[in-house]
Amino acid sequence: MADSRKVGVLGGGQLGRMLIEAANRLNIQVNVLDAAASPAKQISAHDGHIEGSFKDASAVKKLAQACDVVTVEIEHVDTHMLEEVAGEVAVEPSWKTLRTIKDKYAQKGYLKEHGVDVAESEDLEGKGAAGLKAVGERFGYPFMLKSKTDAYDGRGNYVVKTADEIDAAVKALGDRPLYAERWADFRMELAVMVVKTKDGVLTFPTVETVHEDSICKLTYAPPRNVSKATTERAQELAKKAIGAFEGKGVFGVEMFLLKDDTLLINEIAPRPHNSGHYTIEACPLSQYDAHLRAILDIPIPPSALRLREPAIMLNILGGKNPDSHIQVTHKAYASPNASIHLYGKGDARPGRKMGHITVTAPSLADAEKEMQPLIDFVDEQKGKSLGARTATTDEPLVAVIMGSDSDLPVLKAGLQILEKLQVPFTVRITSAHRTPDWLREFSKSAADTSLRVIIGAAGGAAHLPGMCASWTTLPVIGLPVKATHMDGWDSLVSMTQMPRGEPVATVGINNSTNAALLAVRILGATDLAVRERLRVWMEGNEKEVLRKDQELLDQGFEKYLKGMGKW
Amino acid sequence: MADSRKVGVLGGGQLGRMLIEAANRLNIQVNVLDAAASPAKQISAHDGHIEGSFKDASAVKKLAQACDVVTVEIEHVDTHMLEEVAGEVAVEPSWKTLRTIKDKYAQKGYLKEHGVDVAESEDLEGKGAAGLKAVGERFGYPFMLKSKTDAYDGRGNYVVKTADEIDAAVKALGDRPLYAERWADFRMELAVMVVKTKDGVLTFPTVETVHEDSICKLTYAPPRNVSKATTERAQELAKKAIGAFEGKGVFGVEMFLLKDDTLLINEIAPRPHNSGHYTIEACPLSQYDAHLRAILDIPIPPSALRLREPAIMLNILGGKNPDSHIQVTHKAYASPNASIHLYGKGDARPGRKMGHITVTAPSLADAEKEMQPLIDFVDEQKGKSLGARTATTDEPLVAVIMGSDSDLPVLKAGLQILEKLQVPFTVRITSAHRTPDWLREFSKSAADTSLRVIIGAAGGAAHLPGMCASWTTLPVIGLPVKATHMDGWDSLVSMTQMPRGEPVATVGINNSTNAALLAVRILGATDLAVRERLRVWMEGNEKEVLRKDQELLDQGFEKYLKGMGKW
Repeated sequence: MADSRKVGVLGGGQLGRMLIEAANRLNIQVNVLDAAASPAKQISAHDGHIEGSFKDASAVKKLAQACDVVTVEIEHVDTHMLEEVAGEVAVEPSWKTLRTIKDKYAQKGYLKEHGVDVAESEDLEGKGAAGLKAVGERFGYPFMLKSKTDAYDGRGNYVVKTADEIDAAVKALGDRPLYAERWADFRMELAVMVVKTKDGVLTFPTVETVHEDSICKLTYAPPRNVSKATTERAQELAKKAIGAFEGKGVFGVEMFLLKDDTLLINEIAPRPHNSGHYTIEACPLSQYDAHLRAILDIPIPPSALRLREPAIMLNILGGKNPDSHIQVTHKAYASPNASIHLYGKGDARPGRKMGHITVTAPSLADAEKEMQPLIDFVDEQKGKSLGARTATTDEPLVAVIMGSDSDLPVLKAGLQILEKLQVPFTVRITSAHRTPDWLREFSKSAADTSLRVIIGAAGGAAHLPGMCASWTTLPVIGLPVKATHMDGWDSLVSMTQMPRGEPVATVGINNSTNAALLAVRILGATDLAVRERLRVWMEGNEKEVLRKDQELLDQGFEKYLKGMGKW
Repeated sequence: MADSRKVGVLGGGQLGRMLIEAANRLNIQVNVLDAAASPAKQISAHDGHIEGSFKDASAVKKLAQACDVVTVEIEHVDTHMLEEVAGEVAVEPSWKTLRTIKDKYAQKGYLKEHGVDVAESEDLEGKGAAGLKAVGERFGYPFMLKSKTDAYDGRGNYVVKTADEIDAAVKALGDRPLYAERWADFRMELAVMVVKTKDGVLTFPTVETVHEDSICKLTYAPPRNVSKATTERAQELAKKAIGAFEGKGVFGVEMFLLKDDTLLINEIAPRPHNSGHYTIEACPLSQYDAHLRAILDIPIPPSALRLREPAIMLNILGGKNPDSHIQVTHKAYASPNASIHLYGKGDARPGRKMGHITVTAPSLADAEKEMQPLIDFVDEQKGKSLGARTATTDEPLVAVIMGSDSDLPVLKAGLQILEKLQVPFTVRITSAHRTPDWLREFSKSAADTSLRVIIGAAGGAAHLPGMCASWTTLPVIGLPVKATHMDGWDSLVSMTQMPRGEPVATVGINNSTNAALLAVRILGATDLAVRERLRVWMEGNEKEVLRKDQELLDQGFEKYLKGMGKW
C-alpha cells in the first residue's frame, strides 16, 4: 500500500463517495461511518467501514479508534464526541471549527469578530413572532429567517416577504433555533473552495453559483461577466474567512456579489462542497484530492488548483418522475464534453441530489452552448417554463472599436467575415480624442474580459489602436481608414510607426476584411476549431480562383471580358 | 439504478479497475472474475464478483450466467467457453476476435488478409533452430522471435541479433509456439485507441509510445515532431485494422512509424490499453468510458474523444527496492499537473505495473518540462544513466523568417525581446524569390508543428510574409526592412496592402521590437503566463518613463541635457 494511514469519514453520501474516488487512486483506505449501502461504501470494498449514524457518539468513537485521521462530509455531527477523541486521533478540520460552523448564527458572529464581511444578522431564539416583527421593522422586507442548525439545501430557510407572512414563517420552521438575516440585494452569488493545509491557505478559482429553490443548480467557472479583479477579491475574502478557523481540509465559501460590487460571505461549509464538483474535471487536483492531501499533510502545489478549461456544473436532482434524473443522464450521453456522475443513491425524491454533470470546453461560451440543452431539459422535466432559462450569449472574443460611426461602412466587410467564421464580437464607438477616458477604461479592462483581440479602425491622426495598445496586453489590429486628405497614408503611418514597445498590427487601408481575417488567425493560433473554419474558407477562395482560371482558359480572354461586361 | 444491466469482466487487474471507476460513475454494476483481492474488486463493493481464474472455463460460465454483457481486460482467456456462452449472453468484442488476436501470428495473418500493412512474419512452430536460421538468412539480422500466445510486456519476445544467438533464443522461449518477424527500422512507435460501436468505428488521437525493455514507459499525446497528416494516417490505419474485426469495445493499436514515414501495424489489443491511460484526464471521455459505452450501446459523440490538453503518461513500475514505486508518487506530489493512479497491487516486483502518472498542460513542451524530473527520478531509481534521458527541447512557438541574412541585424532587438519574455522561437532564412519551394513547404506545414505565429522580415518588394500568409492559416507578422531605396516605404506598402483574404500584420519599418511584442501579445491572448510576463515588462517600461520624468523635474532641462551629453 502506498500510504498505510487510514482515514475515517463521518457520512457516506456523495461527498464521501467522491472523496473515496480520490483516495482509491492513491490506495489510501477510507473507513466510512454511515448506513450499510451508502454511496461512499459502494466503491470501497473492505471491512473497515462502520454501520451507523454519523450523529451517534458511540459509532464516532468506534470509527476514531480504527483510523489515523477523522474528517467529515457533513457538519451536522456530534462535535462533543469529536472533542473527546481528538486526543487519540487527528480530527480535521478541528472539532472547534465544526462546532462553530454547524451553528450558522455562531458562524457569522465568529466571522464578524475576525473582521470578515457578512450579512447583518440578529438572534431570534425564543423571541417568537414578536421578535420577527421587530426585525422586520429594523431590516425591512424581505428578510431571511433561518434555522441556526441542521439547515441545508434550503431546508430551514424562509424568505419573509411581508409582515403578513410572519406567522406562516414561524409555523414553517417550528421549534428550531432561529435567527434573521438582512436581505442581500445581490447581483450574483459566487463561491470559492479554500484549502487549509499545515503550511497555509490556498484557493481554487472563483465560481458563479446559480440557485433555484435554495438548492445549488449550476456553477460557472469562471463566473460570467465578472472582472478578474473581483474574482481575485472573492478569493482573498474566502482566504481571510477560512484563515480564521482551526484545522486542515477544504472549505466551501459561498458569498454574495452585491450590485455595488461589495462582497459579503453568505455561508461556509467545513468540507467538500457542491460548488467544487467542477474541479474533478476542470482542475489538475480536485477538491477531493485537495481535502485528502490537506488532512494527510501531502504536498499541494498551488498551481494544481488552476482551471484547465472553463467548466459548468449542473446538478441532477430527483424530478417529478422516479426516473427523471435518469432521463437527464441519457440526454447527456449525446453531449461530447459532459462528464456524468451518478451517486448510487436509492429513490429519487424530488429535489434530492442524485448526481451531477460537468461540461468543460475551450471557452465558457462553448460550454454554455453545450450545457444549455441539458438545462432546458431539466427545466422541462421539472415542468418549468422555458422563459426563465439562463440567458446564453456568446461572449465576444473580438472587440471592434472605431473612432466615429463614419468608419462603420468600411468595417462592414470585416464584420461579415467574423460572422461567417463564427467568431463572437462586439462593436463599439470610442474616440481617442473625444472619449479618451472611456477608451482608457475599456482598454485597461479588456484583458480581464472574454476578449482576446481588438481591432481599432481610425482615420487621420488615427491614434485609436495605438492608444488602446498602450493600455492593454491584448493584440491590437490597426485598420487605417481613408479620411479626407492624403489618401489614407496618414492613418497607415500613424499605426505602423508606433514606438518600440506597443505594436499595432496594421493591415491595408480600408481593408477590414484583412483586419477581421487577422483576428481570426490570431484566435486560430490556439483554437483549432476556428483555425479549421479558416482553412475551409481559404480553400473555398482557392477553388474560386482555380475555377475562374479554368473558365478563362475555356472561354478565351475575349469572351471572358464580355462576361464581365468589360469588352 | 441508472442502468440495471450487469457487465462481467474476465480479469480484475488495473484495466478492470479503471473500467470500474468509469462504471461507478454511471452506477453500472460490474462483476469481476479474478482472485479475491484483485485491484478491480477493491473499488466495487457488491456480492456479484466471482473468485477464480479468467482462464477457468467453469468460472467463465458462472460469470456469464450472472451478466448481460461479458467483456475482457486481457485477451489470454478461454475463447472456447466464450463461444459456448455467446448464445446466452453478449460477448464483446466477439470471441472470434479474441481468438484471432490472442494468437499474434494469426492476428497478423488476419490483418494481412484484410489489406492492412503489418510487418512481414513467418511461422516457425516446430521448425526449431534450423527454421530460425533460414529466417535469419531471408530477413537478415536482427529479427524478432515471438511467441504466438501469452506474450505481453516483452515476455515471449526475443531480439535475435546474429546467427550466434539462435540457440540462446530457442532456449529462452522454450516450447512456446514461435514465429519470426522482420525487423522494423522505425523512427518511433505510435498508438491509437479505437472504439468500435454498433454504429461504426471511432478513434482517439494518435499518441507516441516509448518502450523500455519492451514495456511501455511513456506516451506522448500528441506525438512529438510528427505532422498532423501522419497522425491522421495513423488513425485511418488503426480504423481500417479494427474495422476488420467483429464486436464492440475499445482496441489498442500499436504501430511503427518507419524512417520513410511508412506506418506498419505492430500489435493489436482487443481491450483498454496502457497507451490509452492518458485519456482519463486528457479527453472528455476516457478509453474506459468509451469501452463501457460501446459494449452497452450507449452513444459516444465522436468529439468526446478529442484532446483537451496535451498529455504525457509515465508508467510507475516496480523498481529495485520494494518501495521504489512509492518514492515516485511522493516525488509526483510536488508536480502541479500530475494525476497519480495507483492500482492497489500487492508486491512491487521489478517491472510490474504498479500505477501511472499523467501530466496534462497547455502545451506539450510544458508537460515535458514538468514530467522530465519524474522521468529522471524513475531512471535513477532503476539505476540507469541519466545520459539516456529523453531530450527535452522547448518547441518553438514563433518562427522568425527572413529573406536574407542581411536582415538579421534588424531582427536582433526583436529576438532579444522573445528571449527576455521566454518565448521559444526558431530563426530561418527563406526567400520568396530565391527559395520559393522551400518557403511554400515551410508555410504549408507550419500549422502542423508547434508554431503559432510567424514573423516575416523582408525589404524591397518584400513578398516573404505575404506569400507565407497565403500558404498558412497562422497569423503572420510583417516586418518591413529598410532596403537600398525608398527609405523602407516599398516594404511597408508591400506588406500592408495585401489583397483581401490574406492579411499580414504589419509593424513599423525596422521595428523588430514591435514585431516580437506583437507575437508575444498574440500568444498572450490565450496563454496567461505569457500575458503576465508581458504585463510585468510593460509595467517596467512605464516605471522607467515615470522615473525619467521625475529626474527631468528634479534636475531641470539644462542639467538633464548635459547628462545626456547634448548640451
